[in-house]
Amino acid sequence: MTATTVPDTDDATLEAALVGLAASSPALADTGRAQRAAGLRAVADALDAAAEDLVAVAARETWLPVPRLTGEVARTTGQLRMFADGLDEGSFLDVVIDPADPAAVPVPRPDLRRMHVPLGPVLVFAASNFPFAFSVAGGDTASALAAGCPVVVKAHPGHPETSVRTAGIVRAAWEGAGMPAGSFALITGEQAGVAALRDPRITAAGFTGSLHGGTALYRIAAERDVPIPFYAEMGSLNPTFITPGAVAARGEQIAAGFVTSFTLGVGQFCTKPGLLFLPRGHGLDDALVRAVREVAPGRMLHERIRRGHDAVRAELAALPGMRVVAAVDGDPDAAGLAGATLLATDLATLLADRERVLPECFGPTSVIVEYDGMWEVLTAARTFGGNLTATVHAEEDELELVRPLVRELRDQAGRIVWNGWPTGVAVAWAMHHGGPWPATSSPLHTSVGMTAIRRFLRPVTYQDVPAALLDEVLQDRNPAGIPRRLDGRLSTGDVTGS
Amino acid sequence: MTATTVPDTDDATLEAALVGLAASSPALADTGRAQRAAGLRAVADALDAAAEDLVAVAARETWLPVPRLTGEVARTTGQLRMFADGLDEGSFLDVVIDPADPAAVPVPRPDLRRMHVPLGPVLVFAASNFPFAFSVAGGDTASALAAGCPVVVKAHPGHPETSVRTAGIVRAAWEGAGMPAGSFALITGEQAGVAALRDPRITAAGFTGSLHGGTALYRIAAERDVPIPFYAEMGSLNPTFITPGAVAARGEQIAAGFVTSFTLGVGQFCTKPGLLFLPRGHGLDDALVRAVREVAPGRMLHERIRRGHDAVRAELAALPGMRVVAAVDGDPDAAGLAGATLLATDLATLLADRERVLPECFGPTSVIVEYDGMWEVLTAARTFGGNLTATVHAEEDELELVRPLVRELRDQAGRIVWNGWPTGVAVAWAMHHGGPWPATSSPLHTSVGMTAIRRFLRPVTYQDVPAALLDEVLQDRNPAGIPRRLDGRLSTGDVTGS
Repeated sequence: MTATTVPDTDDATLEAALVGLAASSPALADTGRAQRAAGLRAVADALDAAAEDLVAVAARETWLPVPRLTGEVARTTGQLRMFADGLDEGSFLDVVIDPADPAAVPVPRPDLRRMHVPLGPVLVFAASNFPFAFSVAGGDTASALAAGCPVVVKAHPGHPETSVRTAGIVRAAWEGAGMPAGSFALITGEQAGVAALRDPRITAAGFTGSLHGGTALYRIAAERDVPIPFYAEMGSLNPTFITPGAVAARGEQIAAGFVTSFTLGVGQFCTKPGLLFLPRGHGLDDALVRAVREVAPGRMLHERIRRGHDAVRAELAALPGMRVVAAVDGDPDAAGLAGATLLATDLATLLADRERVLPECFGPTSVIVEYDGMWEVLTAARTFGGNLTATVHAEEDELELVRPLVRELRDQAGRIVWNGWPTGVAVAWAMHHGGPWPATSSPLHTSVGMTAIRRFLRPVTYQDVPAALLDEVLQDRNPAGIPRRLDGRLSTGDVTGS
Repeated sequence: MTATTVPDTDDATLEAALVGLAASSPALADTGRAQRAAGLRAVADALDAAAEDLVAVAARETWLPVPRLTGEVARTTGQLRMFADGLDEGSFLDVVIDPADPAAVPVPRPDLRRMHVPLGPVLVFAASNFPFAFSVAGGDTASALAAGCPVVVKAHPGHPETSVRTAGIVRAAWEGAGMPAGSFALITGEQAGVAALRDPRITAAGFTGSLHGGTALYRIAAERDVPIPFYAEMGSLNPTFITPGAVAARGEQIAAGFVTSFTLGVGQFCTKPGLLFLPRGHGLDDALVRAVREVAPGRMLHERIRRGHDAVRAELAALPGMRVVAAVDGDPDAAGLAGATLLATDLATLLADRERVLPECFGPTSVIVEYDGMWEVLTAARTFGGNLTATVHAEEDELELVRPLVRELRDQAGRIVWNGWPTGVAVAWAMHHGGPWPATSSPLHTSVGMTAIRRFLRPVTYQDVPAALLDEVLQDRNPAGIPRRLDGRLSTGDVTGS
């Protein structure tokens, strides 16, 4: 790992970036869907072309392995292209047309045509654990640009050089595709980030990171003279529940799958399963210990993050009622190296000390909770607040047993995984990567998948406005066949009879 | 007006209401769409049946005229039935199904099925100016109940007896239709309202009222340990722009229409046009004066509100650069009576003293701004921040003249009205009754129309979950034909090939 230094953005540079965003905002909003799609595809192509260099820089800065980083660049460019496809498809505009109804009672209804328009300049706080997919050119940036919002990214200090290089490529490709100059910018340093968040020219912000950081920034956004939407994706325990039947049918396989999932990426995924509920007397200790010992220690993103992990792990392990099932130590002389740790306790301990047990342990540590019956599992599910995911392993003849649990988890999590593992978030229309606080600050929204674009759009209704002043998607004719709601019914056709 | 006294809700009663909401929340969420639709229709029917009594009470409490109140009850029950129809239609569930794709690269895609579920208990702060349509059984309540969220309404002190009677009818009809006991409640008093807003069992809140009150409550919602969405509809100036061509073609008609609009309901609508931009030398003073003098003074909701109006009006009239075009005084001995007042100034005065000129004057007072050219109009449009509406009057041969203005207004307002008046908000799919701060606290959402339901729903994704544990709308078969997105395309059909 080579220490890289990128100076913090100074006031004048920040001001120039914000001026650029505000000045380019109307022009970017007025680019057509096809133009913006081409811009996003140009960015994706340019990042793919530079992937080898970018990966090399990121590997130096973060210790993440090259194959993982290579895959992440592909995911990042895949996301950009998904939003481009979504622009082509057009339903994100949420077009609704209610033609005039002169016969409506009590009063005639005017012609009403509604569509989504961009919110305005967006500030993105990049994440540490995904130097590409949740960073400078990640999902927040892609969805905001797709919406037609200029973006300023506050780089994560964990990969500054990667951020600067990525930003250079994004900006050149984006502007090279004809997008307005100044509609994409990068800033560095906490002070610049907070100043941008307080600036009246910023109309929304996205964030991926810790509960502590996300909460602090959320409050700043809410305390502005003009508060703005602040979409934070924060921590998640991702509880996982295993039934007796599942243990009996495939206990060893579950033990192995669980250990793979919580140690994937050295435990640095927001979907890492941090709690595993096993029936008391599960008999899987040996299998779990074997699985943990098979995982080679990995280097965490930074030595600072490793130290944080080790501290939380030590605190958890020292709790009364907690036992260490398996622990692999990293080489203390190898900076950043962390081995997997599996702890175990029971629900009583968990509930007695929930303030200390429940905080997310970022890294390759997870906690088994041994339960006596489904009532305990239900209590636990209710106790663990908002989560990005919740997972259930059960057999086909146990559906009625787990039905109340699955129902409870619906109120607590954004995604419910069945007989699988929560790590790995498919980028798809049906994905929801969100959840109630503290998983996110906005339970209505996702940061992954096409619907992430909704965070940066707002509706406008045109009443009796002449066709010549309306966007093409609000015209009677719909040659592009975009999905619209006409007089209450979904349609890809024209407005008829008006 | 008969003074009515309803005691403030005490701590024990508030606690009972919150317990009822929390306890009934899962059961209400699990009612079927058809059941909830029947519940909403039962409430509508019961309110219609009691309309005469309710109107009589509201007329005593608010001085609003009987025909207006009668129309408002019809609007209220119409809204309830609209949400019932929306439940039947089903697209509010936003169902998205991406069947498993074992061939997906880099990793196979699991089966993902996403739908909207209710947020949980909702707190509604009722408005003063619509004792029915934005009060106990108003749009916030109707949309939250339709979403499957229990509701506690904090009554507005301006019409306590109306609130209590309405709540009794709502509760009896709702629970009579088989909805869970405790899923609807009424509380009174500011202290109970704030305590409810701070309570962890409340998951979202709606508000209609002043910028001052809305902002204070917004901050409370954001400062909670677990912040919640707070949807406030607050003030709006609703600027209206008249071109020279429109003045020439139909100046008298515009003058009359404007005066009717800003004095409608004694100027107590959130869509009241508070600023009228006329070209200098418009020559409409006589027509405006005539129109103002023809409006009989009306009784405002309460004497307190009239006093507030008179104070703001006097402050505006005393500003240097402001002239009084026409003023009709109410009888000072008749409590609550207010006459229409029309002031006039120019943009320089407006901009020099915007902090004092721009606050909304709730009541039958409006300000004419005389402009010299379109650049002034554009500057003004940019200056007036978020509005619920903006209105343009222009002739067919002036479309290019006003094109930049209409474009600018798109960034500033939730609804753009052409050659009409902003008062009167059609309840329709295409309606957007919202706008950037300070019009509302959440530019993404509307408080009128079917899409108001979105405020109280959040997505959940089921990954590989067996069909037996999924809601009927997530099944392969779609006998109800609800609109869903299947593998990226909108469809009312079945999932095929899975």
